[in-house]
Amino acid sequence: MTSEYSIEALEEAEIKRYRDYWDQLVHPTGSLGELEEIGIRASAILGEVPEKLEKKAMVVFCNDNGILEENVSSSPRILTKLLAETMASKCTGVNSLARTAGADVIVVDLGIEDFEDFPGVLNRRISNGTKNFMIEDAMSLEEVEKAIQVGYDIATDLIQKGYKVLGAGELGMGNTTTSAAVISLLLDRDADEVVGLGSGVDDQQFKNKVNVVKSAEKIRRVDKNDPIDVLRKVGGYDIAAMVGLYLACAENRIIGVVDGIIGAAAALVTNRINKNSTDYLFGSHIAKEKGARFALEDIGLRAYLDMSMRLGEGSGCPLFFLLLDSSIDCMNQMTKFEETDIINTLVNIRDK
Amino acid sequence: MTSEYSIEALEEAEIKRYRDYWDQLVHPTGSLGELEEIGIRASAILGEVPEKLEKKAMVVFCNDNGILEENVSSSPRILTKLLAETMASKCTGVNSLARTAGADVIVVDLGIEDFEDFPGVLNRRISNGTKNFMIEDAMSLEEVEKAIQVGYDIATDLIQKGYKVLGAGELGMGNTTTSAAVISLLLDRDADEVVGLGSGVDDQQFKNKVNVVKSAEKIRRVDKNDPIDVLRKVGGYDIAAMVGLYLACAENRIIGVVDGIIGAAAALVTNRINKNSTDYLFGSHIAKEKGARFALEDIGLRAYLDMSMRLGEGSGCPLFFLLLDSSIDCMNQMTKFEETDIINTLVNIRDK
Repeated sequence: MTSEYSIEALEEAEIKRYRDYWDQLVHPTGSLGELEEIGIRASAILGEVPEKLEKKAMVVFCNDNGILEENVSSSPRILTKLLAETMASKCTGVNSLARTAGADVIVVDLGIEDFEDFPGVLNRRISNGTKNFMIEDAMSLEEVEKAIQVGYDIATDLIQKGYKVLGAGELGMGNTTTSAAVISLLLDRDADEVVGLGSGVDDQQFKNKVNVVKSAEKIRRVDKNDPIDVLRKVGGYDIAAMVGLYLACAENRIIGVVDGIIGAAAALVTNRINKNSTDYLFGSHIAKEKGARFALEDIGLRAYLDMSMRLGEGSGCPLFFLLLDSSIDCMNQMTKFEETDIINTLVNIRDK
Repeated sequence: MTSEYSIEALEEAEIKRYRDYWDQLVHPTGSLGELEEIGIRASAILGEVPEKLEKKAMVVFCNDNGILEENVSSSPRILTKLLAETMASKCTGVNSLARTAGADVIVVDLGIEDFEDFPGVLNRRISNGTKNFMIEDAMSLEEVEKAIQVGYDIATDLIQKGYKVLGAGELGMGNTTTSAAVISLLLDRDADEVVGLGSGVDDQQFKNKVNVVKSAEKIRRVDKNDPIDVLRKVGGYDIAAMVGLYLACAENRIIGVVDGIIGAAAALVTNRINKNSTDYLFGSHIAKEKGARFALEDIGLRAYLDMSMRLGEGSGCPLFFLLLDSSIDCMNQMTKFEETDIINTLVNIRDK
């Protein structure tokens, strides 16, 4: 699959160009830390210091997960449907956060159980939900490829409409389990290390979660070196669609943003498909789920916000958009040293 | 001094009221983590869920510090003047960040060396800079009280004009040293633990910094149990004015925001003057200076952003404003469970 995507690594010269740009702005070199790094890499991705990033969007992929049958979640399956409808018609967390950050929200049905067309939900149904990976592969090869393609196509369409920043969100009971399984396999880490509490499991559910993640490799005969095999057998449509979205961001040189453990699993798979893709991605917050931290760390993405958030929906991304806007505004607005007397005065003092 | 300020602790019942408010919003209880806590405490401070926090300001206190004579900084004294002028007339980091966050910036001269009136700089000069605390007390009692009063009066004036959120910033070569000294004394921590690199000192300057902080207590015969004595003898006008600003925020029940080590030193002094004051303060980012972390930790304030920033100017505050706006917007915009079918459906499932 690697060869299908033509993604260039960001050039060091481009990074240096925007670092030099920051160094002209009136502040001690590097003193805005990661705020500078965000603007530097964003500019290198876009090939310029953008004036404003007007068009930003959150794409929220929704689907049910067969693994829910194993009692791994505190939430019943019907919540996926109810929350997708709420997100499309009313206002959930990510809707509000996106509005504050000036971003649009696109809600996508990839396979919510018994879901019918609903205003504001983009119908991209692949099936009625993935399969229980304790019994069979979560997806067929055709299904996983379709899901990746959906994410890729939606992103490509948005990019053609002028969007420069895309965040990926999700909605789907059971998806912290699928994501933990993907991360456990790709990082070769024990289930205990990567499984978290999701939206709040009880002790038995937590044990079940650890157990299914532990069993996944053997039961499904997963080839841990093949990211698509991992994704297909134990992942979900949401993770797969995010992979497609991130690949499209990287191919088209726009900015992709990662939220919690589901996004982190997707970013990890994307990295394993094409290492260069990660150059186009940004982490947002330190998710409560430990697996997310390991995944981001492995691919070298940093999280900027420490908010103990575990909502999902992509809710960390709009908060990152605000940091991105702040950085880009600094690059456009901060005075350059050459526009002040500072350097001349300092040189005069030194030469005295 | 404690008795002068009438500051009530936030009532538990008020906190609970806004926590209950969040619990009605469509999301798993507590899943927006610190974003919820920010909105809960902000609402408890203001006595309501504000519709929008339109009026926000950064107050940047500028002055020179006598301790600079001890070669504790990589930056020459003249930079305080040059940067204050730049901040008032052009655009420095905090100007841009404040603009992005919809906040005004007020630049205040408390004692910049040889500073003359400059458009856009509020003249509140106390002297031509504080004294070198290796030789004499940094401030007289009259001077430190004057500086606290300046911060208090500026804040009170802004509050009367309708500002609900005030961030405190600073500009003054040598002020990471004065702040480290204040923190070291009030927390009874070794100089090595609290001294950082400032805007980038060399090895000799770092040694000097540690040395002056280590010597401060004995040389100045500081009474570590008297926050005003500590502030007066080894602090600076900026720290003192911030204390006044934070006290005014607390007295008037509005929101005060803390940036880096200078703000953290001020928040610590404010806490030691009146413990309740801290209920009205929020941290913003994890400053590079270690002393800031210890001070915030001691008074129970959390930092939300991990950005490796060390600019000063109050630059962390506007980034916090964005988180605050995001939280308040969620409180106003998120749908309540009662406006959806979610609870009814879940109850029906349970009862089946």
